[in-house]
Amino acid sequence: MSNSPSNPKGTRDFLPSELSKRNHIIDILKKNFKNFGFSEIETPALEKNSTLLGKYGNEGDRLVFKILNSGEKVKKADIEALKSNNLNSFTKSVSEKGLRYDLTVPLARYVAQHQNHLIFPFKRFQIQNVWRADRPQHGRFQEFTQCDADVVGNNSIIQEIELIKLYDKVFTELGFDDLVFKINHRLILKGIAEYLGIASNLNEFISIIDKLDKIGIESVVKEIKDMFSNVSISKLENLLKNKSLSFDNISSILCDIPLAVEGLDDLTSIFDFISNKSINNEIKFDLTLARGLNYYTGTIIEVSSKSNTRLGSLGGGGRYDDLTSLFNMKNTSGVGISFGLDRIFILMEERNLFPDHLKNSFDVIVINFGINYLKEIYPVIDRLRNQNKKVLIYPDQVKLNKQFSYANKHNASYAIVFGENEYNNKEIIVKNMIEGTQSTYNLNKIDSIIF
Amino acid sequence: MSNSPSNPKGTRDFLPSELSKRNHIIDILKKNFKNFGFSEIETPALEKNSTLLGKYGNEGDRLVFKILNSGEKVKKADIEALKSNNLNSFTKSVSEKGLRYDLTVPLARYVAQHQNHLIFPFKRFQIQNVWRADRPQHGRFQEFTQCDADVVGNNSIIQEIELIKLYDKVFTELGFDDLVFKINHRLILKGIAEYLGIASNLNEFISIIDKLDKIGIESVVKEIKDMFSNVSISKLENLLKNKSLSFDNISSILCDIPLAVEGLDDLTSIFDFISNKSINNEIKFDLTLARGLNYYTGTIIEVSSKSNTRLGSLGGGGRYDDLTSLFNMKNTSGVGISFGLDRIFILMEERNLFPDHLKNSFDVIVINFGINYLKEIYPVIDRLRNQNKKVLIYPDQVKLNKQFSYANKHNASYAIVFGENEYNNKEIIVKNMIEGTQSTYNLNKIDSIIF
Repeated sequence: MSNSPSNPKGTRDFLPSELSKRNHIIDILKKNFKNFGFSEIETPALEKNSTLLGKYGNEGDRLVFKILNSGEKVKKADIEALKSNNLNSFTKSVSEKGLRYDLTVPLARYVAQHQNHLIFPFKRFQIQNVWRADRPQHGRFQEFTQCDADVVGNNSIIQEIELIKLYDKVFTELGFDDLVFKINHRLILKGIAEYLGIASNLNEFISIIDKLDKIGIESVVKEIKDMFSNVSISKLENLLKNKSLSFDNISSILCDIPLAVEGLDDLTSIFDFISNKSINNEIKFDLTLARGLNYYTGTIIEVSSKSNTRLGSLGGGGRYDDLTSLFNMKNTSGVGISFGLDRIFILMEERNLFPDHLKNSFDVIVINFGINYLKEIYPVIDRLRNQNKKVLIYPDQVKLNKQFSYANKHNASYAIVFGENEYNNKEIIVKNMIEGTQSTYNLNKIDSIIF
Repeated sequence: MSNSPSNPKGTRDFLPSELSKRNHIIDILKKNFKNFGFSEIETPALEKNSTLLGKYGNEGDRLVFKILNSGEKVKKADIEALKSNNLNSFTKSVSEKGLRYDLTVPLARYVAQHQNHLIFPFKRFQIQNVWRADRPQHGRFQEFTQCDADVVGNNSIIQEIELIKLYDKVFTELGFDDLVFKINHRLILKGIAEYLGIASNLNEFISIIDKLDKIGIESVVKEIKDMFSNVSISKLENLLKNKSLSFDNISSILCDIPLAVEGLDDLTSIFDFISNKSINNEIKFDLTLARGLNYYTGTIIEVSSKSNTRLGSLGGGGRYDDLTSLFNMKNTSGVGISFGLDRIFILMEERNLFPDHLKNSFDVIVINFGINYLKEIYPVIDRLRNQNKKVLIYPDQVKLNKQFSYANKHNASYAIVFGENEYNNKEIIVKNMIEGTQSTYNLNKIDSIIF
């Protein structure tokens, strides 16, 4: 029993006003995912540790929330491991399951497990919570929602094109028109590594490039020079020092490197299809876009605001050739994008992009003059609800100003007044709470009540 | 790395076809919760053990999934407790958090914590997963979804009335009209205990009554006789042996017991408002309805199918006077109902109540004749999606029968055909996949395309 109850650090309670805004975003996501032919799936929050661990690196393994085995099973705790400070072994002895860490590994597990019940290409979206035992801090949560759309089992570039269109459609509908969709290709980065003479150090190269936004061009060039003694300095500077290097320039520099050409061809197909005229936001080749995660192998994309760069990306994604091989299902390519719900929320709040009607907990209040009057008027309430009006009956027969004040706190638009006078006159009064006007209707003609 | 990947026992992956049906139910729930003036909230899956434990009895405490403390904290494991088989102390030493076990305790915690930011009466609904470390078995899951609507901070009987109307509205919209809403009142049960001379053993009495559906009237009477030596046998038989005992009869039997009269008055108010004529299902007083949970103090209600009694209840709820006192917030009454999503799902499947359109993963397939044709026709695709049509572009330029077969597997209603011939003729062919007909439209008049 707790004296001052609270939710755990790093988690959130959502008040109705906040949740209705979050759901406004989620509803627009869902609608557009469906309109683009994606089907929704769900996977359990609980996954076997054998599914989760070893997929996110050592740091990731550490951040997976582990479930303590229940009941008698906990007796198998490996005390020796604990004493010798071998925490991994100890954990393994008391935990078999963990909480979903992202939606990608569960997707891979799901596709491998249910491959015989799925039709490929399989276009799925998934909006579920994930959990990470990160140190809670401002704006970083241990429990948060991921929103992913992926296509599994298809290599066509039309998927990348559709995903960019989907980004544009969703963000436009949310009210954004100043975003930039930065795009690059892992094969171009691979080609550059080859061009620079450091092909065998691709991952290290990518992880340095990935820090560019944080540490700046100068530091990136320095780090590369320091780390790779064999790098061609002149070529490196030629490439990176000029951040505005155009797609055409890069194409001609890398034209003799087949891997790079493959990546350049993919991007050319995308730019042929999507021009800055055909979308509401901007699409832009960005040689320095790397996206940290190792599993990307093709096109990579990231969405950010031009005016708020401090916030970081609002979404990102790309193609990964090897999604399901971890679960023994070979040759299944995936391409997908995700939406950063919390950051989108923050930016929409900042810009006042949430529609006003989200503030209403209900549309109509029914003023309470006693249960007999409510019974008499219930057909009107039924009828309004059938028309999808949100109707709240004030529960107690108290002073009118108390009831109207409750309605105002909830931003109700209308109040229905039906007391003794109205009963005697066989009429209903509908007050417009916003304009301060009112209309009187005949009780026998409730069909004529229109809001 | 696992050879044959699988989700943990007792958890579920949802395939698109299954999830679209579940979401059909949830959408109808949400819409009606809102139309009845309830606002949605969410609480985290993770709660402090101090919030969860001690609220559900010893068995419940055991079934709460505990999260293993992360990192170095696990070193505080109480090895001595483990050795001496004191599993509770050991668990306490390695776990501070657990997974939400129901939505009621988190609601109580939420209301107590945020009371200054809420407007009372507070009508909230919540549809979230809960976790129980129950032995997995057919139809019983470790992770499942609860759907609750509660009113906090109001004693008016109008709440009970509205909740019954809400039940009727939701179940009617789902396609049910043969349900019975059984209703009873804890004060009536309390009054009966007093009438039988066993008032001081109320909880034991209720827990025996609660078994009636499982063990039958004879066994209940026997158990009561055996357990309470001081019970009035003639009165007991008079009450229980006649299951069809009417509300009026009970009222006259208990008319001298003030507690019972209070309960009877509540039910009278409900029956005065809701008759079997004013709802689509049936409402029925049931003296033997007890509902196990101890926290109910007033009206109790349970929904079940008249034709499928094997399945158990489809929902239930009631009034509890002491919701938030566990978290030091006094005098806050609650009344609420919940919907049994999984059982509703099963019964709807049995009765074929899910609408056909849920089978479509998408409405329209765009046949792929190459990327240039797709680009030409993309404005049509955009337009259809703006009209909320679900449009899937077949990703590869393969044989037509393969593309149409994919469309058929997904129950697509229409196919858009735009290849070389159509390009030359500046026209678009729309095939109706269900009726086998087709229409031809002028490419310059795409506004005329109507499905």
